[in-house]
Amino acid sequence: MQPLFSMSYSVTPIATIHTPFREKFAIPRQPQLATAATGKIHLQPPFNSSQAFEGLEHCSHIWVLFLFHKAMPDLSQTPRLQVRPPRLGGNQKVGVFATRSNHRPNAIGQSLLKLEQITGTCLTVSGVDLLNDTPIIDIKPYIPYADCVPTATNSLAAGAPALISVIWAEEARQQAEGHQQRLQQPVIELIQQCLSQDPKPAYQTPSPQREYGVRLWDLDVKWHYPSTDTIRVLSVLSA
Amino acid sequence: MQPLFSMSYSVTPIATIHTPFREKFAIPRQPQLATAATGKIHLQPPFNSSQAFEGLEHCSHIWVLFLFHKAMPDLSQTPRLQVRPPRLGGNQKVGVFATRSNHRPNAIGQSLLKLEQITGTCLTVSGVDLLNDTPIIDIKPYIPYADCVPTATNSLAAGAPALISVIWAEEARQQAEGHQQRLQQPVIELIQQCLSQDPKPAYQTPSPQREYGVRLWDLDVKWHYPSTDTIRVLSVLSA
Repeated sequence: MQPLFSMSYSVTPIATIHTPFREKFAIPRQPQLATAATGKIHLQPPFNSSQAFEGLEHCSHIWVLFLFHKAMPDLSQTPRLQVRPPRLGGNQKVGVFATRSNHRPNAIGQSLLKLEQITGTCLTVSGVDLLNDTPIIDIKPYIPYADCVPTATNSLAAGAPALISVIWAEEARQQAEGHQQRLQQPVIELIQQCLSQDPKPAYQTPSPQREYGVRLWDLDVKWHYPSTDTIRVLSVLSA
Repeated sequence: MQPLFSMSYSVTPIATIHTPFREKFAIPRQPQLATAATGKIHLQPPFNSSQAFEGLEHCSHIWVLFLFHKAMPDLSQTPRLQVRPPRLGGNQKVGVFATRSNHRPNAIGQSLLKLEQITGTCLTVSGVDLLNDTPIIDIKPYIPYADCVPTATNSLAAGAPALISVIWAEEARQQAEGHQQRLQQPVIELIQQCLSQDPKPAYQTPSPQREYGVRLWDLDVKWHYPSTDTIRVLSVLSA
């Protein structure tokens, strides 16, 4: 008999998720940090039947297992055993199994999302931290008595990351309000929540001249750091 | 471009776990219900380096993603959209994505285990609900601020299952004590904890004559129901 660990197993997506996030930069580091980040999970055949999630309406939260489809390991390379989590400033290395980094031997992620609504075979979720079009391989109910362990500790990630102040250039605010109307999405709130996580690498000390940018929906959002502890949104333009 | 959902992805185990559980019957339905159920996770090459989990010593609990290697879906069959969870008596059907059933489109499970010890490249964990030799495909740290949601609700599984009384035939108790010495394992406590979950299907009304049995380590444990609300351990013998 072959040893079990040499077995490989093929997984196939059951759904995709549509989210505002078009690139990895500025996605909050854990789910639930940006409550305005909503997504729509579209079940794929043969799972696009309401039978497949009958009962899920009794659950406030779901675990979503997904593929890190933009961080697939290169199988011709030696697997990476250590990563540099942004949490620790981006310079310090820790073991890959001590982090939730997307660079993993098996490119599977696990996010806890709030289930907002079930409409036909589409699930609306909030608090998402997934790239648009991420392939989803499983949905499991959150089971509070088993999953919520108030005594658990993790001193590498003891609390939610500290927030940075976000202010807006008047013009950027007006642009965002216009797009909010057009997209029928919480543009201002999502930009506010994502940027307040301070997306730039912690080891960078930004000069006020340096501009940063990210794509959310079809919008190019630009900002800079007038001082090291403040972000100022400069513009929110259609890409 | 092919639609993403037609992509399949191959996962390869990074570790195996050794546990007392030799069959699915009588395994607690969620992790942490039997704290005496300990397991040893053995990392496989090339991950059997302490580098791969440096920093994990800061975490009290870990998520283990694993393959349901004894419940692999038959790919020649139409996928099952509904299951009958034991929790609901084993008769009522619910959607597969509303349960943690092991019969899933992608046979991946997710268990929250307590990390007891790291010795070389072996992790000792407790509260396990995994079959012996289960292939493990990922280990991720529990992040309390993100994973523990005290306000979450799930009315399909609102609390830990009710416990049933477990009493011991004098002979069974003595046998268990002997094996406990020999195996250096918490034999009595684990039998007590697993049986108090009442492993039999909820729709069965057992006659006192009917014997049930399960294999734990190399032991055959036998019991019956002298009344519907009590289990009596009859024997604990080497298999």
